[in-house]
Amino acid sequence: MEETPKGSRLHIAIFGRRNAGKSSLINALTSQDIALVSNVPGTTTDPVYKAMEILPIGPVMIIDTAGIDDVGDLGALRVERTMQVLNKTDLAVIVIEPEDGVTNFEAQLIKEIRKRNVPIAGVINKSDLMAVAPDKVAVWSEALDLPLLTISAKTGQGIEELKRTMIKLAPDDWEGPQLIGDLVSPGDTVVLVVPIDLAAPKGRLILPQVQTIRDLLDNDVCAVVVKERELKEALENLKNPPRLVVTDSQEFMKVGADTPPGVMLTSFSILLARHKGDLETLVAGAKAIENLQPGDKVLISEGCTHHRQADDIGKVKIPRWLRQAVGGELDFEWVSGGTFPADLEKFKLIVHCGACMLNRREMLYRLAMAREAGIPIVNYGLLIAQIHGILYRALAPFPLAQMILEE
Amino acid sequence: MEETPKGSRLHIAIFGRRNAGKSSLINALTSQDIALVSNVPGTTTDPVYKAMEILPIGPVMIIDTAGIDDVGDLGALRVERTMQVLNKTDLAVIVIEPEDGVTNFEAQLIKEIRKRNVPIAGVINKSDLMAVAPDKVAVWSEALDLPLLTISAKTGQGIEELKRTMIKLAPDDWEGPQLIGDLVSPGDTVVLVVPIDLAAPKGRLILPQVQTIRDLLDNDVCAVVVKERELKEALENLKNPPRLVVTDSQEFMKVGADTPPGVMLTSFSILLARHKGDLETLVAGAKAIENLQPGDKVLISEGCTHHRQADDIGKVKIPRWLRQAVGGELDFEWVSGGTFPADLEKFKLIVHCGACMLNRREMLYRLAMAREAGIPIVNYGLLIAQIHGILYRALAPFPLAQMILEE
Repeated sequence: MEETPKGSRLHIAIFGRRNAGKSSLINALTSQDIALVSNVPGTTTDPVYKAMEILPIGPVMIIDTAGIDDVGDLGALRVERTMQVLNKTDLAVIVIEPEDGVTNFEAQLIKEIRKRNVPIAGVINKSDLMAVAPDKVAVWSEALDLPLLTISAKTGQGIEELKRTMIKLAPDDWEGPQLIGDLVSPGDTVVLVVPIDLAAPKGRLILPQVQTIRDLLDNDVCAVVVKERELKEALENLKNPPRLVVTDSQEFMKVGADTPPGVMLTSFSILLARHKGDLETLVAGAKAIENLQPGDKVLISEGCTHHRQADDIGKVKIPRWLRQAVGGELDFEWVSGGTFPADLEKFKLIVHCGACMLNRREMLYRLAMAREAGIPIVNYGLLIAQIHGILYRALAPFPLAQMILEE
Repeated sequence: MEETPKGSRLHIAIFGRRNAGKSSLINALTSQDIALVSNVPGTTTDPVYKAMEILPIGPVMIIDTAGIDDVGDLGALRVERTMQVLNKTDLAVIVIEPEDGVTNFEAQLIKEIRKRNVPIAGVINKSDLMAVAPDKVAVWSEALDLPLLTISAKTGQGIEELKRTMIKLAPDDWEGPQLIGDLVSPGDTVVLVVPIDLAAPKGRLILPQVQTIRDLLDNDVCAVVVKERELKEALENLKNPPRLVVTDSQEFMKVGADTPPGVMLTSFSILLARHKGDLETLVAGAKAIENLQPGDKVLISEGCTHHRQADDIGKVKIPRWLRQAVGGELDFEWVSGGTFPADLEKFKLIVHCGACMLNRREMLYRLAMAREAGIPIVNYGLLIAQIHGILYRALAPFPLAQMILEE
């Protein structure tokens, strides 16, 4: 059920000379061992497209550019093949081998990539084997007019920082996973449970609800929109059960009781967490709540200068729920609007708002900062679901995320 | 089915001394003969609340203030009764008898009404019996600090101008009929057919669709939202037929074919025309299309400086449809943004846009101007429905409007 249409995957091409460690870097980024790793140059022989997940970036298409990484200058044929790859590339990563350093190959490659306006992240790999002196890094960086990160694909050093750079460089029109369209098939019926409370302005629906209805229509699905009170009746009025029921988090208990066990149930928060951020990273953050101890420091981060209502959730309800879960006091800090505090390492958990005012890239950037600091991060919706013991059922459409919660 | 909740009716209190012609004015405003008319002062003895329709104002509650119109000053008891009426009044109309002119009664009454911040329209009635000299009108008007219209409830002189003044004075929060809520009962299912075309921005629904869904939820109704392609399947999947199917006008033919004859069908345009303007006035305008002759002048009025798309409808499609309907050339004029041209009388028909950028009061004001000039007025949606021969069926929830079309 978790197929992602090609269009919503960020296409990342990994460039570099033979043995610069392209395949190892792919493994480090994706925490998978799909690419064949060997220390014989040129093990991979053709550009290979691999649909993978990078946390917290989400579904990506990695393009492994073996076969155009021969030693020496770019010949006409290799330029052509590079161009074919670049036609499909949203973001290029250039991997530099520390012993050989920057050569004509990298310089020409960057020239070709820049012709296409494709953003570039530059890394010097193998920091575990060879430490390149900072002044040498500066010289190379200036020669290429490109910031260079020092990383080790083998030890993982700098990998999270590289991910953060990649998020920063991702194109503006990159959207990530659909809200719901990839979870349904044409002709399906999906029930949306929309409580009408003080949150929704008169005569309006909140944006995620509208986006979900529209995404369903775009995917030839019938959307049944109903309040929690009328849900039971609405389900009984359908001859064929719906493919999915999506509810506002605050009504999950009641909706869970009214939805037959055979019908998959999820929440708008979870759909949004996946669409706007990275579901797996946030689920790992939800799981980390169980490790909190009394006295731990918790950061509550609100995306915007907030309305009274967001205020109430972040300032009152979430602290209360977390205290109850931990069975003792916690040391809360709040931050809003801008970025995270510099000393992020002191926190045991970051709780982020639903990010309704942030775009996907901004939210992913924050997730990447948290990962870099090694701090679990969860958002309001997933925290609420986890605290109330309903997150597991609500992740039914997302087996990978369910696995993270079970671990 | 056309019950209007009390809250959405404009409450209009008619004040004036005995025999000033309050009941006759009510008849003239509503074109009905419900009030008992007599030339003996004080035929009516108590304030009477009458749910009525005023074209183009829509559903109103007329408060006939007999019993507090005794000759002479307002006594304590009458002040109290006036206050009770004013507590429920959105708009006061003061009727002055031309022979007696302005007395202490009117002056005190206006003072009391103004204490409550209720807007006032002032009229001098019986212009058919007695012409009050303009300088005398000016003196009275100045004494009361109130503009005074000269009217005749008997001949209808000035009545349309009075309606226009009343619309202008109506309170800001006056909303008029619900979009759809008064057409349904709790537990109903309503199917909304929403074509996804170039008009709807990516990831969004257009506002009337959102407002309709929200209004249904507010009224404990289940909204089934579907594209025209999936409608048949969606209807077959319901155990109980829907109370109503609402479609975008452009898909009316297809939707009409897929909707069983027993199920009422209407369009978003018609719901909006009623919510935003006055359905009966606009239906009368649609009917007037059949009287157009080749060479007639037609005014096309667009509410705002327009998008290419609105442009296309107003500038190309509607002229073409009207030419086809008339079987010859027509003389079109276009106006946008502001108000109508001064020489409105030269037109045989006014075609107004859907008024998505206007509020109800602005739209009603334009309808009132058209009525005053005696020119039929129709909006885009109703014109399209009429030209395509589907208006009658689409008015199924509105028998009064259907009658106008049949006349």
